Amino acid sequence: MTAPEPREAASSLQLCRIMRPDDANIMGNVHGGTILKMIEEAGCIIGTRHCNTLNGDRCMAALARVEKTEFLCPVFIGEVAHVTAEITHTSQHSLEVQVNVMAENILTGTKKLANKAALWYVPCSLKNVDKIMEVPPIKYASAEQAEEGRKRYEIQKTERLETKTRIKEVVSPPSHPERHTVGFSQSSLIHLVGPSDCTLHDCVHGGVTMKLMDEVAGIVAARHCNTNIVTASVDAINFHRKIKKGCVVTVTGRLTFVSNKSMEIEVIVDASPLMEEDKGKYQAVSAFFTFISLDKYNRAVPVPPLKIEGEEEQRSFEEGNARYLHNKAKRLAAKESLQ
Amino acid sequence: MTAPEPREAASSLQLCRIMRPDDANIMGNVHGGTILKMIEEAGCIIGTRHCNTLNGDRCMAALARVEKTEFLCPVFIGEVAHVTAEITHTSQHSLEVQVNVMAENILTGTKKLANKAALWYVPCSLKNVDKIMEVPPIKYASAEQAEEGRKRYEIQKTERLETKTRIKEVVSPPSHPERHTVGFSQSSLIHLVGPSDCTLHDCVHGGVTMKLMDEVAGIVAARHCNTNIVTASVDAINFHRKIKKGCVVTVTGRLTFVSNKSMEIEVIVDASPLMEEDKGKYQAVSAFFTFISLDKYNRAVPVPPLKIEGEEEQRSFEEGNARYLHNKAKRLAAKESLQ
Amino acid sequence: MTAPEPREAASSLQLCRIMRPDDANIMGNVHGGTILKMIEEAGCIIGTRHCNTLNGDRCMAALARVEKTEFLCPVFIGEVAHVTAEITHTSQHSLEVQVNVMAENILTGTKKLANKAALWYVPCSLKNVDKIMEVPPIKYASAEQAEEGRKRYEIQKTERLETKTRIKEVVSPPSHPERHTVGFSQSSLIHLVGPSDCTLHDCVHGGVTMKLMDEVAGIVAARHCNTNIVTASVDAINFHRKIKKGCVVTVTGRLTFVSNKSMEIEVIVDASPLMEEDKGKYQAVSAFFTFISLDKYNRAVPVPPLKIEGEEEQRSFEEGNARYLHNKAKRLAAKESLQ
Repeated sequence: MTAPEPREAASSLQLCRIMRPDDANIMGNVHGGTILKMIEEAGCIIGTRHCNTLNGDRCMAALARVEKTEFLCPVFIGEVAHVTAEITHTSQHSLEVQVNVMAENILTGTKKLANKAALWYVPCSLKNVDKIMEVPPIKYASAEQAEEGRKRYEIQKTERLETKTRIKEVVSPPSHPERHTVGFSQSSLIHLVGPSDCTLHDCVHGGVTMKLMDEVAGIVAARHCNTNIVTASVDAINFHRKIKKGCVVTVTGRLTFVSNKSMEIEVIVDASPLMEEDKGKYQAVSAFFTFISLDKYNRAVPVPPLKIEGEEEQRSFEEGNARYLHNKAKRLAAKESLQ
Repeated sequence: MTAPEPREAASSLQLCRIMRPDDANIMGNVHGGTILKMIEEAGCIIGTRHCNTLNGDRCMAALARVEKTEFLCPVFIGEVAHVTAEITHTSQHSLEVQVNVMAENILTGTKKLANKAALWYVPCSLKNVDKIMEVPPIKYASAEQAEEGRKRYEIQKTERLETKTRIKEVVSPPSHPERHTVGFSQSSLIHLVGPSDCTLHDCVHGGVTMKLMDEVAGIVAARHCNTNIVTASVDAINFHRKIKKGCVVTVTGRLTFVSNKSMEIEVIVDASPLMEEDKGKYQAVSAFFTFISLDKYNRAVPVPPLKIEGEEEQRSFEEGNARYLHNKAKRLAAKESLQ
Repeated sequence: MTAPEPREAASSLQLCRIMRPDDANIMGNVHGGTILKMIEEAGCIIGTRHCNTLNGDRCMAALARVEKTEFLCPVFIGEVAHVTAEITHTSQHSLEVQVNVMAENILTGTKKLANKAALWYVPCSLKNVDKIMEVPPIKYASAEQAEEGRKRYEIQKTERLETKTRIKEVVSPPSHPERHTVGFSQSSLIHLVGPSDCTLHDCVHGGVTMKLMDEVAGIVAARHCNTNIVTASVDAINFHRKIKKGCVVTVTGRLTFVSNKSMEIEVIVDASPLMEEDKGKYQAVSAFFTFISLDKYNRAVPVPPLKIEGEEEQRSFEEGNARYLHNKAKRLAAKESLQ
């Protein structure tokens, strides 16, 4: 079999929607999870469209990974979120989609960049969801562009492999936790996967899972600081195992680290098929969400320090601190390179 | 075949969710129907999980009955509702789930008990929805606990049988009804059952039906008193017949009784399959909802008296009055026993 | 004050979304109402964006009228609906938006035109929803284009005025209607307007109303023929009165005419504020929906004839027949002019 000819990537895809009351918290700030869900829908459409141009089984693009993403400015009810997605790299069995989210105030005409994200998809056969299909290669504008994409591909591949076997144990909180401890704000939700949560091959959309994760993380953050909180960033999320229709999803959030003005929450998603206990519970996803606390002028305000109990929490706190310092340094470097 | 060994009941199940604008009326009070739907989802998950541990067909727990339940305090948008469900009794073909709902204000940290409910489920085979499966017995903490559960089981069984054949005729309202009459506030809604309304065996979730019932009852109550109204309690509801995907559901609410500060509304649910003309309309459920009227400080206020027309309405009113006096006496007795 | 300078119309707007199970009936056909709601959302965004460029109060584009529109091909679950909207005419106080809907099968790559529609909007002040603002004029590509738009504007203005005072009385169906009569399939739904149904000035989105209308019309059609039915077309709809948050909306559908392969259903929308007793029920919208019945290959099949009872129904039937013949002649003429 000869390799398929490289071809132009499918043209970029735009989707937009007015932000509604249910998309936001009671202060009118649109949930980070709402934005993540729109981003993933755009990526799924453009990825699926691209991968069905070769002869072979019909397939759907399944989300494998979202790179670390930052929420650059708050979005409000009544604004229009514009999501633009384009395919920026292809490997044999995966493709990278880069997505921008602009928030437009249609009353004042102002537009602002709300989010930039990069997602990796793999095409799964509709006949057999575990069969991964070939991705038609795209043409690159230049050799550098191709090379940079290849580097991004290698980096994410290494990271994905590393996290593949890392299973996080969900810790039960104590019965009467003290305020501002980890156990005090720990929260879980469960969700029975319904038809509207799923793709054509009856797997949960990655965006649906991320929305649930953001919801739990938001509850944890609000419980810790009792103020208006918003999602500031999400660390890279790897989707190792699919969640199928008829599963019950348990999403647990737990504070790992608190800086002066931010809270890091680890979110773990377990799935278990309701009717087949022999295929027991498995861990589907885990990720770190960072939230900040806002005053009524949408300015970040200090958050209460976290009371650490025990070695385990201490270790998590230090790891969170390292991530925090690492990200801060990266942001600073990015700023300087722009000057 | 030998009887299965009694075993520990599945551990309790917790689910939580932030209350959103669409969960509430325009005054911010979360609908009773939203709470009932969450309660039933928790019951369905824990019941289904428990019943799929024996060898045999896969099954889903279908709601058979909800015991009378009271809404103990109003819940508001932005609060987090925590639903805790546990299995408290099993008979050969049914199980009882007890559910608590706590409403947490995540900004102030206050928590209040919003609702307590008891639900009965029967496991229906996924292959044949009319085939009822065996329920694995649970171990009880004590002989008394087992005995009390058995009593609750017998009482509900008797009541279920009594209501099984009782069909309520939906009365058409007059063309130009006078204000504050029964006909004036009578309301009906129809709903085409969609995929998200259904379980894995394509039957409507009991919680979806209860939410529709609460919605109609709320409209009836608001039409009668033109104020902010909330669900105060729901009498026991028996689910005798399943409602399948593709049905049209007609939900009709009609005032039966009004006391100084409460309104009792009878709600009747008829279902008819849209595409199978041979199977006609049938009555799926009926129940009594009690609503109260609130001022802007969430205090109960008097409601306009009901203008009764004809013998039929008079009889319903007297029956409603009897239920009202009975419940009042029970509440009083419960209070005294606590002192 | 001098007249504002004509300027380029805002560039066209695109929105797209994957069709989910909840958007469709159990045969997988996406509801006409889902499409109408997306069309109206696109029109509202582009219209509001255009009208907020002059100095003056902030405003939102409120739907005043939708021209007759046909559903050219069925859309299915899993397809992506692409909605493209552009402003094609402006008068002093209104603007015309033309919208195309393409349905893309992202597995096969096929695209088909699903719908074309023209909508008229008026900008209403956010401070006072009854104050209509000025529309910034657009530049036209040619004098002919401007002139044609003006003609469309005059025609719709005349039609709107004609229908303004035409109030349709909702007829109560008989208690035990015979099969295939008008009363047999007549259906009503009520809906309590929630926050997600509303614009920033707390009025119901026109698209939400149209979706409810399509839902009722579909139930009427299915009750008449007990088969898989889809929306074929909708006659021009005029939105004379706004529906505000906190209203109860009653939507009633009633067969007026049946041809060999189509059913015409008149849908009437009444609104009544729940909490202000002085402001009574009023008629918000009325329109004619045409449905066809499909077999399992999505081919139109004959529908049972309508049994007419009484003069009123006979008159409605004849009027429906006249509309039917008129539309058929127009379609034929359009076809011939293309050859």
